[in-house]
Amino acid sequence: MTFLYKADPARGAVWRQLFTQKAPQREFRIWPDIGDPEKVRFLAAWEPPQDIKKTFPNLEVLFSIAAGVDQFDLSLLPPELPVVRMVEPGLVNGMVEYACFAVLGLHRNMPLYQRQQRAARWQALPVMPAAQRRVGVLGLGSLGQAVLAQLRTFGFDCAGWSRSQRHVEGVQCFAGQDSLPDFLARTDILICLLPLTPETRGMLNHRFFAGLPQGAALVHVGRGQHLVTDDLLGALASGQLSEAVIDVCDPEPPPASHPFWQHPNIWLTPHIGSMTQPESAVDVMLDNLRRYEAGETMTGLVDRTRGY
Amino acid sequence: MTFLYKADPARGAVWRQLFTQKAPQREFRIWPDIGDPEKVRFLAAWEPPQDIKKTFPNLEVLFSIAAGVDQFDLSLLPPELPVVRMVEPGLVNGMVEYACFAVLGLHRNMPLYQRQQRAARWQALPVMPAAQRRVGVLGLGSLGQAVLAQLRTFGFDCAGWSRSQRHVEGVQCFAGQDSLPDFLARTDILICLLPLTPETRGMLNHRFFAGLPQGAALVHVGRGQHLVTDDLLGALASGQLSEAVIDVCDPEPPPASHPFWQHPNIWLTPHIGSMTQPESAVDVMLDNLRRYEAGETMTGLVDRTRGY
Repeated sequence: MTFLYKADPARGAVWRQLFTQKAPQREFRIWPDIGDPEKVRFLAAWEPPQDIKKTFPNLEVLFSIAAGVDQFDLSLLPPELPVVRMVEPGLVNGMVEYACFAVLGLHRNMPLYQRQQRAARWQALPVMPAAQRRVGVLGLGSLGQAVLAQLRTFGFDCAGWSRSQRHVEGVQCFAGQDSLPDFLARTDILICLLPLTPETRGMLNHRFFAGLPQGAALVHVGRGQHLVTDDLLGALASGQLSEAVIDVCDPEPPPASHPFWQHPNIWLTPHIGSMTQPESAVDVMLDNLRRYEAGETMTGLVDRTRGY
Repeated sequence: MTFLYKADPARGAVWRQLFTQKAPQREFRIWPDIGDPEKVRFLAAWEPPQDIKKTFPNLEVLFSIAAGVDQFDLSLLPPELPVVRMVEPGLVNGMVEYACFAVLGLHRNMPLYQRQQRAARWQALPVMPAAQRRVGVLGLGSLGQAVLAQLRTFGFDCAGWSRSQRHVEGVQCFAGQDSLPDFLARTDILICLLPLTPETRGMLNHRFFAGLPQGAALVHVGRGQHLVTDDLLGALASGQLSEAVIDVCDPEPPPASHPFWQHPNIWLTPHIGSMTQPESAVDVMLDNLRRYEAGETMTGLVDRTRGY
């Protein structure tokens, strides 16, 4: 039986090495070198092929190599096919690093200091203690919870929002659409870590930004489609938002004419908030194959009614 | 008896409020409104007046309102006058935030991503796990130790160097001039938190940079006079250093012609790494006055033979 990898081939080569070393009994192949398609039982993909059941009639599990599965059109996949997203420590650590970098930078006015630098201006601004800086995380999955745990070690005033009620130590947790206004009203630095679903698409819009305190800042590490580009530009122009740190775009890469590239109040990074780390990802993958074969629940199994 | 404050008057006004509230029995004055100079027993200053003993014949303690006392010319001060530097949690937290911001930014290639942004280039770079990133702190006083403790929570490979041997949990500690080459050779991101003394002046020079691995990065939050400007520019030009985050300069502010302002590989901030926070600083100050009057050792008392 074949385990097929269909994503960036350079990273695939690293996966192959790790499979060879850790699970030499498994046949590992990298797309498009698929071998006998009838032997493909497991597929780890960024984007699966069209008509997956016809291509791989004996496919048993579809793994996403990313934290989300929004790049899959779930409606086109056979309903009985288990879909698993990537939950692995390398992905979590990367996101914690990115979010802390962004929050510390916004907390300490670094975007403004960078503009001052290029204007040869030496002007210190007052420092606000972290305990008075209200940080809020949208989305309380494994990434959101890990980000909040690390932000707490700096002493920030932390809250989180999710669709259903969660409990996170030391964090004020808000749940459901009705509580969103209260969550936004107390948030100076907002981090979007939501999954992309029909409900969250376009959620970061004019009305949403208007609910934040004036001068709030956005860290967007969700998906490009969460954000209404023109509404962000409007909020920055009016001063409703002061700065934004953006890691995702729609489309990716954004065209050269996209306004984020040259916007003075936007730090834009090329979707690097967190990337699956082959070393730890292969361990999770092999453990999931073992779980599947033993009839246990796989880590990251997607609830297809929720979409994540 | 008078407690006299001689530094930024806006911050002095906040100190006055806190003194009035917490120690109403103490007479608090802000330079130049000194009242009767013979009554001045305690002076908290950024820069003391010339001929301090003549100005304040009954001065008993000189406090620095900063973490260092290098802005004082110790040789001009009466040898029996106790000199105390500021050791307070607000100062420590600010430095921890700045250092973590800088290290996370360098670790995750943010200076390069910012240059890519302005060139409308969307190109992800491989992520190195924090455990493989070797961070080193020069100077293991209260600031250096707090910075290392926080960096360890991200999983960085941490080391420290100081003049005399220290022990810091989870940190490989190097001591003395002889061990400096070994410390530098294992350090990808170097943070300078040294006190400024005759021995450390000009220490960040060509020979020092040559001891780091090629492509290392510098976070300079010590004093401007530690750094030989031309040697840093040379190291960045040759690629021996990749990036620098600089919070201190010589002089401050640097003139408009200073090469740091527009250097593509330098993030320059206006000496804001940490600033004394009036709230916590006044608590430490009042505790030190109590200690002094009770004959106890004051927090931050300077050993004038070492100069810090």
